[in-house]
Amino acid sequence: MKAIDSEQLRTQLRAILPADCLIEDRESQRPFECDALSLYRELPQLVALPATVDQAQAVLRCCHRLQVPVVARGAGTGLCAGAMPHPEGVLLGLSKLNRILDVDPVARTARVQPGVSNLAISQAAAGHGLYYGPDPSSQIACSIGGNVAENSGGVHCLKYGLTVHNLLSLELLTVAGDRTTLGSSGLDSPGYDLMALLTGSEGLLGVVTEVTVKLLPTPELARVIMAGFDSVRAAGDAVGAVIAAGIVPAGLEMMDALAIQAAEDFVAAGYPRDAQALLLCELDGTEQEVEQHIAAVQSLFTGHGATSMTVSADEAQRQLLWQGRKSAFPAVGRMSPDYYCMDGTIPRGQVSGVLEEIARLSQHYRLRCANVFHAGDGNLHPLIMFDGGKPEEIARAERFGADILELSVAVGGCITGEHGVGLEKLAQMPSQFGEAELHQFEDIKHAFDPVLTLNPGKGIPLLKRCQEYRALPARHRHG
Amino acid sequence: MKAIDSEQLRTQLRAILPADCLIEDRESQRPFECDALSLYRELPQLVALPATVDQAQAVLRCCHRLQVPVVARGAGTGLCAGAMPHPEGVLLGLSKLNRILDVDPVARTARVQPGVSNLAISQAAAGHGLYYGPDPSSQIACSIGGNVAENSGGVHCLKYGLTVHNLLSLELLTVAGDRTTLGSSGLDSPGYDLMALLTGSEGLLGVVTEVTVKLLPTPELARVIMAGFDSVRAAGDAVGAVIAAGIVPAGLEMMDALAIQAAEDFVAAGYPRDAQALLLCELDGTEQEVEQHIAAVQSLFTGHGATSMTVSADEAQRQLLWQGRKSAFPAVGRMSPDYYCMDGTIPRGQVSGVLEEIARLSQHYRLRCANVFHAGDGNLHPLIMFDGGKPEEIARAERFGADILELSVAVGGCITGEHGVGLEKLAQMPSQFGEAELHQFEDIKHAFDPVLTLNPGKGIPLLKRCQEYRALPARHRHG
Repeated sequence: MKAIDSEQLRTQLRAILPADCLIEDRESQRPFECDALSLYRELPQLVALPATVDQAQAVLRCCHRLQVPVVARGAGTGLCAGAMPHPEGVLLGLSKLNRILDVDPVARTARVQPGVSNLAISQAAAGHGLYYGPDPSSQIACSIGGNVAENSGGVHCLKYGLTVHNLLSLELLTVAGDRTTLGSSGLDSPGYDLMALLTGSEGLLGVVTEVTVKLLPTPELARVIMAGFDSVRAAGDAVGAVIAAGIVPAGLEMMDALAIQAAEDFVAAGYPRDAQALLLCELDGTEQEVEQHIAAVQSLFTGHGATSMTVSADEAQRQLLWQGRKSAFPAVGRMSPDYYCMDGTIPRGQVSGVLEEIARLSQHYRLRCANVFHAGDGNLHPLIMFDGGKPEEIARAERFGADILELSVAVGGCITGEHGVGLEKLAQMPSQFGEAELHQFEDIKHAFDPVLTLNPGKGIPLLKRCQEYRALPARHRHG
Repeated sequence: MKAIDSEQLRTQLRAILPADCLIEDRESQRPFECDALSLYRELPQLVALPATVDQAQAVLRCCHRLQVPVVARGAGTGLCAGAMPHPEGVLLGLSKLNRILDVDPVARTARVQPGVSNLAISQAAAGHGLYYGPDPSSQIACSIGGNVAENSGGVHCLKYGLTVHNLLSLELLTVAGDRTTLGSSGLDSPGYDLMALLTGSEGLLGVVTEVTVKLLPTPELARVIMAGFDSVRAAGDAVGAVIAAGIVPAGLEMMDALAIQAAEDFVAAGYPRDAQALLLCELDGTEQEVEQHIAAVQSLFTGHGATSMTVSADEAQRQLLWQGRKSAFPAVGRMSPDYYCMDGTIPRGQVSGVLEEIARLSQHYRLRCANVFHAGDGNLHPLIMFDGGKPEEIARAERFGADILELSVAVGGCITGEHGVGLEKLAQMPSQFGEAELHQFEDIKHAFDPVLTLNPGKGIPLLKRCQEYRALPARHRHG
């Protein structure tokens, strides 16, 4: 990468963007210095907020000409520092591209700009009895462009799949500012599946300017069963029993004792304070189907020693029972100055053993850890509590987190389920992948971005760095 | 590519493979000269049938060293000449890698070698109340490795997705013979989604040696409604109504008058001979859910002018009703010396208009065409009937086919839904994609296979060829 000519960049972007679409002064840039993983912060050279796709294209062309790094950003709700700015680069915010272009009830699709929030798509489709499936906890705020970048999941992805399973096509700007279309209106497309490749690629391969999503019919009925258990193991076994019975819940979530306390203090949803573990199991479908599955799950939970059980009687109670789970992150945030949310995914059968090991690590590192997670698909979200005012405690929290990720890999799982690698988990990529895989990743990156100016330093460690990463203890990875 | 040293290749492969795993004489090679699209035939230098992954790896290493083209082949049931041998290359048949390595009922996964047939996976899982979702018509014969190569669909992919939606991970040999793992046991993985990228890549990026698939719980009940209509348009509208009502059928298939006649002559399933179009709509789930949806679909079909309706009373009748649909290809085969099966996919709303245009083209080219297709997801399978003994008629059939593909693109669809591009649809790729997309495809190819020895000349037209393709009428594309 050649040295950046800041003045030239500034002059050219001023010519491309209206004044309110270019943020030059440092103070006004502050809100863009990090995503929701605020441990990692950096100011960019400039913040560009194009109001049209043409402007976004012109910004990319300009940056490509000048070989300036570009970091795309959606709503900034990401949890892996994937949208942290590059100090020599342009932060390309896509929040002004926020139009819903089309909702087609016969094709069951919506065509939207990347800055549209996840929830807004479902709201726009609701009149047709349709909704958009993936539902990250941040769905009020997070943008569909960011969902594509991180291949976001959510409570309902057990039944309805991740972002990649709910897309039909993407409009993309390449690093050189060329427009391309990936995917099509059909279930499948000729050529390589570049749409799937782009999904979850964390802004390293291109900038998404339009997304066509599949919509799902709103289920006739949804009910949730909440059950308390006197051990994490009993709850874990109950999860396995539901899956083995051939039931596909719309969501199947677990919380441990600390998470139950935090959530109940926060929203008073009626969670059993004396339980060591809590399951929330949602069934949806036709009325009869839901009743039949509710009865089957109740029977399985009873057989696995549930100490309490509540079935939502109406929509208000269903929402309330979920409220505790959905508020778990802020609820834990009230118990500790800071917390660090991990995202390892493990095979279903390993849940109990891994949670016991996390409890042991919690003692070892002298840091509390609340567990809230997608039990149905083995996607853990341990919330490590620490005091960000104490550098030594930050370091311990990071080591604890790194141990959890490496434990996930050791039991046959992986280091991220839905939050992405970003900057945060770069050091664990060589635990997950061998040289051959990392080499393939690097070749893919070169195929899309030969000068390596799209979100450099994120997602995929460059091969020359891998040996260094492998040699370094996790705590030094920021260096 | 440098000139191939045939003797050296032969000598080295003899050292790698047992005698019964290497086919050298031309007559014994005949069964491998084409896949199920027998319009395109070619003999390879040698046919290698490794019995172990180590042997497959050694074959790839040898071919890579000598820069010999390698074409991987599964069961040879493909419909786009994707597995047609390269005259200077090795045909790498994977049929001996046919072991089911593991079925895990808790994780709901099966780990299998690429030569295992699609149906064998479901049979191995049946004892656990599980099955593998995608069900191409050729499922008795076709291999899972071939399904991955073409991202195969089937009648049930409307509800359960294509191959890519039902995979967790792939073991891959690169062109250089290196082993890599793509995907993981989790729903999502860090890094680029190379598993999705490989799926449907038609053997151009690597050779799959192991597949981990997701298994689905066998539904409690499945029933099918067969309905006759007096026009294709009425049937098409009925399809739209089912989808718009928020019902997701397990399958939703349409056949036109010619296909109805052919199928009824062949299997006597009780199809209405006087109907202009026939719909088969399968509902699955719990008993109550199925009954409720059956009633809803019956009411919608009646409202859209169904002239006859039959609901399967038991499993035997359900199988019989499907038998006609599943035998449609051989049934049409009895009506004509040869037929050519197309695979365009179009937006659901365009079905009636496109079928009317196909009828017009049928008159124009003086060739009969039966239509059998996945109406629910707009994946057409027009079967163009011709006499392969008359070169002029072959040329007309090919022009007719090319027109259908280009029509699919023109109405917003694509040239292939589940059969792949292979050699057959190369000429239409520049209708589907612009230079930017084709350029990206080429870059991806280079990232995996820089010497271009994996299945050369298939799937993705090289850029330097595109201008020529665009300039050529379809009939010259073999040249």
